[in-house]
Amino acid sequence: MADKAKRHHMKLVPHFKTAQSHQVGEWAKEYGIREITVSSIKMAEYFCGQGWENIHIAFPFNPLESKKLNELAKHQSISVQLINEAVTEKLAKELENPVGFFIEIDAGYGRTGVEVTDFGLIEAILRKAKSSDKLKFKGFYLHPGHTYYTEDKNKIYDESRAALNMLKNKYRTEYPHLVTRVGDTPGCSVIEEFGDIDEMGPGNFVFFDMMQVHLGSCKIEEVAVALAVPVVDIKKERKEILIHGGGVHLAKDVLTEPDGTKNFGEVVYLTEEGWTIPLQRSFLKSISQEHGIIKASDELLAKVKVGDVLGILPIHSCMTADCMGSYLSLSGEKIDHAEAEK
Amino acid sequence: MADKAKRHHMKLVPHFKTAQSHQVGEWAKEYGIREITVSSIKMAEYFCGQGWENIHIAFPFNPLESKKLNELAKHQSISVQLINEAVTEKLAKELENPVGFFIEIDAGYGRTGVEVTDFGLIEAILRKAKSSDKLKFKGFYLHPGHTYYTEDKNKIYDESRAALNMLKNKYRTEYPHLVTRVGDTPGCSVIEEFGDIDEMGPGNFVFFDMMQVHLGSCKIEEVAVALAVPVVDIKKERKEILIHGGGVHLAKDVLTEPDGTKNFGEVVYLTEEGWTIPLQRSFLKSISQEHGIIKASDELLAKVKVGDVLGILPIHSCMTADCMGSYLSLSGEKIDHAEAEK
Repeated sequence: MADKAKRHHMKLVPHFKTAQSHQVGEWAKEYGIREITVSSIKMAEYFCGQGWENIHIAFPFNPLESKKLNELAKHQSISVQLINEAVTEKLAKELENPVGFFIEIDAGYGRTGVEVTDFGLIEAILRKAKSSDKLKFKGFYLHPGHTYYTEDKNKIYDESRAALNMLKNKYRTEYPHLVTRVGDTPGCSVIEEFGDIDEMGPGNFVFFDMMQVHLGSCKIEEVAVALAVPVVDIKKERKEILIHGGGVHLAKDVLTEPDGTKNFGEVVYLTEEGWTIPLQRSFLKSISQEHGIIKASDELLAKVKVGDVLGILPIHSCMTADCMGSYLSLSGEKIDHAEAEK
Repeated sequence: MADKAKRHHMKLVPHFKTAQSHQVGEWAKEYGIREITVSSIKMAEYFCGQGWENIHIAFPFNPLESKKLNELAKHQSISVQLINEAVTEKLAKELENPVGFFIEIDAGYGRTGVEVTDFGLIEAILRKAKSSDKLKFKGFYLHPGHTYYTEDKNKIYDESRAALNMLKNKYRTEYPHLVTRVGDTPGCSVIEEFGDIDEMGPGNFVFFDMMQVHLGSCKIEEVAVALAVPVVDIKKERKEILIHGGGVHLAKDVLTEPDGTKNFGEVVYLTEEGWTIPLQRSFLKSISQEHGIIKASDELLAKVKVGDVLGILPIHSCMTADCMGSYLSLSGEKIDHAEAEK
């Protein structure tokens, strides 16, 4: 992703809600990453003091957290996201240290943000922000999360480019340094036309997962995180394997197989060097809080025994990492995750 | 539930996978609870040394954890669940301290356990266990989890009672102290006919949740845990409220409304004394990792403003508690949860 951003003359500001890890942050720095994105002030706090030039909290600012924001902004360059007048006004009054902000633009699927043509609201936010010398407008942020649901990513990016381009042209006279940022893994993975968008902020790409494989963002061989699960029982006649691995480990994100069966995670064979992708697929067909049941291939049934440890490629790696709260590298090193701090 | 168990002359051994809390354990002791159930050895460890007469790990024993089991069993009475010969044999060889075991019986929905008529397997497990003087047979455990999916809980309990009764009669000559245990919140909440089942082990009842309301286990007024979420944006024209509250807080368990809309949690109004149930319903119609969007009633829209904190009754309280890793009581006291130890 760093290479791709460079090729398109864009700044990559990866979203660390996926890895939530200082160690992974250090690896990112080796690729020239200097700024990161997070999704909560708690997560921003976790990354403070790690040498980041800026930490952007890509979530509509929660006005109950201005005290905490003031604390963090004393020693760390922070930016937030604003989408309404009320929060902007409150923040403008309460800020004690400089903080940047992006205005989030609704990408068209209605999760969050200002509608792209709602200039009245955009200008109301900018006006309220000007009442404080602490609140610095950085630009427009757009998360085209509907690339997760739509086949036609090119069309979504045509619209995203056009929206951000229009906004930049409209406001660059008054704000010559404003930038535009787009950020979703499916789009950033496959799109090759970013126009004059300045920055990209995908997160999931750091690990990918089976959802991204399903969406065509990556190949299954590129998924970089797996849950290790012990086999506790085998029902050969039913072709089922019971593992200790359920909703509290994987979360409950799910894909649907062509025959309608649910898939809560894909089985891989763990090896000394990592894992291999089976020739015959096996996957988790059901999970409860702690239990998982694998629909097992003949290949898997022929080799597995109780007490073995299998790998499961998660459907949604961000959620699985958040559930587990730490990682183990292939060399046996424990890698930190913010959740362990809670 | 303690009253109900007493009324039916049954021992209540609550499942602490829901609360996962020492403090809630202390409250349980006030109701005469002396033994508890957990779902992993990690959770058993959390409850060791808290004065429990026995901690039962209601999960098919993971043969990779016999070393940890030996450590815990030095100072704490523990029991485990066995469902196959291989693990029983390994455990019989490796145990250094006495440990009880239940044989888990498949309740008929195929998640886990020995089929009720598979006497060959039951006797093979008992035979392997006898090769060690450390492994003590306690009885049969049956979790009728299909009460979550089936209208006819009475029929399920007719079958469960019959199965456990048959097994008790068959094996009580050789094992005069064997007991039978059943444990699921929907059944234990509504069933009034337990026959000669000795023990009940439900978990979720300690908080209940919207799934249990949906199943008829409780009334919405009986749900005893809520997620507090800040309102970060309001779209009046769309009747939507954006909150900071998503999959990493609530988990992604979901109910479906009669009109097909998804429901990830029910809105309540927080008050000084707890919360009140709105006259007009509002609920979370979609969530992502950190975001939640409420489908808001006119009543809610008329009173809510950005910066308010709303309550969300979870669909699955066990999962939500596990995500959050601690509780706040109504008097502002922080209540522990095992996840914070991870």
